[in-house]
Amino acid sequence: MEFDTIAAISTPSGEGAIAIVRLSGDDALSIADTMYKGKQQLANVDTHTIHYGRIQNPETEEIVEEVMVSVLRAPKTFTREDVVEINCHGGLVSVNKILDLVLSQGARLAEPGEFTKRAFLNGRIDLSQAEGVMDLIRAKTDRAMNVAMKQMEGRLSERIRRLRQQLLETVANVEVNIDYPEYDDAETMTLDRLTERAGSVRDEIDNLLETAKQGKILREGLATAIIGRPNVGKSSLMNSLVHENKAIVTEVPGTTRDVLEEYVNIRGVPLRLIDTAGIRETEDIVEKIGVERSRQVLDEAELILLVINSAEELKKEDEALFQAIEDMNAVIILNKTDLNREVEEDRIKELASGRPIIRASLLQDEGIDELEKSISHLFFEEGVETADLSYLSNARHIGLLNQAKRSVNDALEAAEMEVPVDMIQIDITRAWEQLGEIVGENVHESLIDQLFSQFCLGK
Amino acid sequence: MEFDTIAAISTPSGEGAIAIVRLSGDDALSIADTMYKGKQQLANVDTHTIHYGRIQNPETEEIVEEVMVSVLRAPKTFTREDVVEINCHGGLVSVNKILDLVLSQGARLAEPGEFTKRAFLNGRIDLSQAEGVMDLIRAKTDRAMNVAMKQMEGRLSERIRRLRQQLLETVANVEVNIDYPEYDDAETMTLDRLTERAGSVRDEIDNLLETAKQGKILREGLATAIIGRPNVGKSSLMNSLVHENKAIVTEVPGTTRDVLEEYVNIRGVPLRLIDTAGIRETEDIVEKIGVERSRQVLDEAELILLVINSAEELKKEDEALFQAIEDMNAVIILNKTDLNREVEEDRIKELASGRPIIRASLLQDEGIDELEKSISHLFFEEGVETADLSYLSNARHIGLLNQAKRSVNDALEAAEMEVPVDMIQIDITRAWEQLGEIVGENVHESLIDQLFSQFCLGK
Repeated sequence: MEFDTIAAISTPSGEGAIAIVRLSGDDALSIADTMYKGKQQLANVDTHTIHYGRIQNPETEEIVEEVMVSVLRAPKTFTREDVVEINCHGGLVSVNKILDLVLSQGARLAEPGEFTKRAFLNGRIDLSQAEGVMDLIRAKTDRAMNVAMKQMEGRLSERIRRLRQQLLETVANVEVNIDYPEYDDAETMTLDRLTERAGSVRDEIDNLLETAKQGKILREGLATAIIGRPNVGKSSLMNSLVHENKAIVTEVPGTTRDVLEEYVNIRGVPLRLIDTAGIRETEDIVEKIGVERSRQVLDEAELILLVINSAEELKKEDEALFQAIEDMNAVIILNKTDLNREVEEDRIKELASGRPIIRASLLQDEGIDELEKSISHLFFEEGVETADLSYLSNARHIGLLNQAKRSVNDALEAAEMEVPVDMIQIDITRAWEQLGEIVGENVHESLIDQLFSQFCLGK
Repeated sequence: MEFDTIAAISTPSGEGAIAIVRLSGDDALSIADTMYKGKQQLANVDTHTIHYGRIQNPETEEIVEEVMVSVLRAPKTFTREDVVEINCHGGLVSVNKILDLVLSQGARLAEPGEFTKRAFLNGRIDLSQAEGVMDLIRAKTDRAMNVAMKQMEGRLSERIRRLRQQLLETVANVEVNIDYPEYDDAETMTLDRLTERAGSVRDEIDNLLETAKQGKILREGLATAIIGRPNVGKSSLMNSLVHENKAIVTEVPGTTRDVLEEYVNIRGVPLRLIDTAGIRETEDIVEKIGVERSRQVLDEAELILLVINSAEELKKEDEALFQAIEDMNAVIILNKTDLNREVEEDRIKELASGRPIIRASLLQDEGIDELEKSISHLFFEEGVETADLSYLSNARHIGLLNQAKRSVNDALEAAEMEVPVDMIQIDITRAWEQLGEIVGENVHESLIDQLFSQFCLGK
């Protein structure tokens, strides 16, 4: 395919040691040459080489920056097109100025994800691999990164391809039998074989879907709310979690600085802490933000950490909080165990109704270890933890797999009812198409645009 | 010189399309080779080439990332040492994992600025050039970037070297005459020549120092406070400034997210807006933050934008604000000129005492242009604006130049008093040494450490 030449800043914004303007397309080299001043023209250099020089405004001849330019010629590049990376001292102003120059010389500003989109459109990777690239960038923990890496490498694509192949063979088999209806037992044999094959496809889809819950948590983080009455130790808990683990603060794309998400990596489980600002600033979230807002927090949460002061008797408010989190994933933290125990543990156990209870003295940093173990255990039972990490993590993939599973089930039911095989064939073909959408076959252009628009700029 | 091998993440932290781990030192290639899996060993490739491959944990053999590795062999590198840059998909987790691997294989985590420090210690650049690198990264406007670029290229170093050469020749001349005291008029001739040369050095130092005020503003931004009574339009002014110009929000190094500095580029003048959060949230900064705090804001400010509601009579509080900013750089903005004018302009003129008054209707976006012109005019008179941009911007340089100027003045005064030339020689030599410190000669190690520690990580 042929496209215009695109350009963008490919490093995160902010002051850093290095900033990169990336170009991709047929004119990448000639555009770079209009402003690059070095020993030789970039048009004449070998592929995969690096060149020292300066960027000069071709109109004003003003020197803008000292740079290293990487030249990567098609097809062995990220996009399969000619790629030039202008690598400059990481200042915000100078990198923006270089980008402006590049755009004034004929490149177009790349849309978010457009470089990866070209890798997809030019056939270097399929859609699920492209989605793996995005997940890799967004990964909050090692485990999430490994999952994304596997997907980027095509592990999921391979499994999907195998399933589609099986479905295709089933259809082919059906067609053979339709073409030779003179054999009496053809119909029965076909149905038997179809049932067997489709059944095995469904089992494999089920296997994949079983990993989906963990995969989604790995990818998106587990929305976690710390709740409790004022002064029971919510801030201490927050601080212990944040300080003992690497906290990752991310700006939510499209905003400047108002929405920040904070992640804490608890033994491979990324907790996305909800309303941490509220807790940090006030220590009594429930009072400050009001009932309305705290209910919102609870609605959003997938995991509750409820802190109870064990040195006081259980209060009406504690009971109310227990009631509010009925049926939710929760860990109960009995804090301040270094002080006299006043809380009625039997009542707590009753209210917890099977959910884990951790004794802690957060100011003494006691109990954090048990809490982390318990959180990790909640979401990764032993079996899954040692699996091969090809979790299903993407909501789009999960949706399509569920659809494909329904189509296969339809086929299986129809076979059981001895519906004519050419009718069943329709269901099988539909499943084949639905699986195809995971890797990007027969996918509508608007979906592709939408998927890539979630990428970061310059990728 | 020989150093150990250092490594750091050289891209800004945050999600991006590309993240880079940079290594520098004798073992850069061998360390990278322990984990790089590609077509050939990096030890065998040519310098200034790029190689596709994967990073594999040498102990667990787990594949960590898909990477492009740049190999740059000494001496034609940023540090003059062997440099390897591992270029990966810009995820926080994977780039940190690669850094961990590199460190586990024998590299040491680089201190902030240590790559640039090596460029200095290995003689590729002098100290003022290194400081130019840092300024380039921190630059908030084109003009500040140009100044930094010139300094990085050695423009300031060159001027300093010429001055030192002149001083050296003066000293040499004095010494010749001391060695041949038999010539009767030697002493007089020497003093005349010395006065002439030292005088020309002092003039040149004065020229440099004259650019210092603008240079410092360019580098550090002009601390600007928007003040005014509640509801006069401070938020509107803020929003107009921020929206019409590129606002740059920077995290202050060493903090996570509490201290954010916001810069607005007003025709080349970077305004550092003070307490913008306060204004954004409350619209009545003076009332909300209290007298104490608003006095602090005023103390910190180098420019005041005082907003007055022209549709109301001048209030007691307005007069108080005028009093608080007596003798300060200020622009008075008469807002809401679309409404009936009630304010007594004569009184305003009197209170402004020569400082510019702008009529504006901020909600209609009227007056912003005049305001910007007036701010730009305050700090860049025509003459300076068209100069060659080798502003002096660094407080350390300004301090040393002032010292050197004093030493030269001492020498000149001594010459006038016909003090023996060998006494005068001491002053000249001191000036020569003080200028030398600007480019990094005879500079104490602890100063060097301190200077580079202000750099960002990975530079």
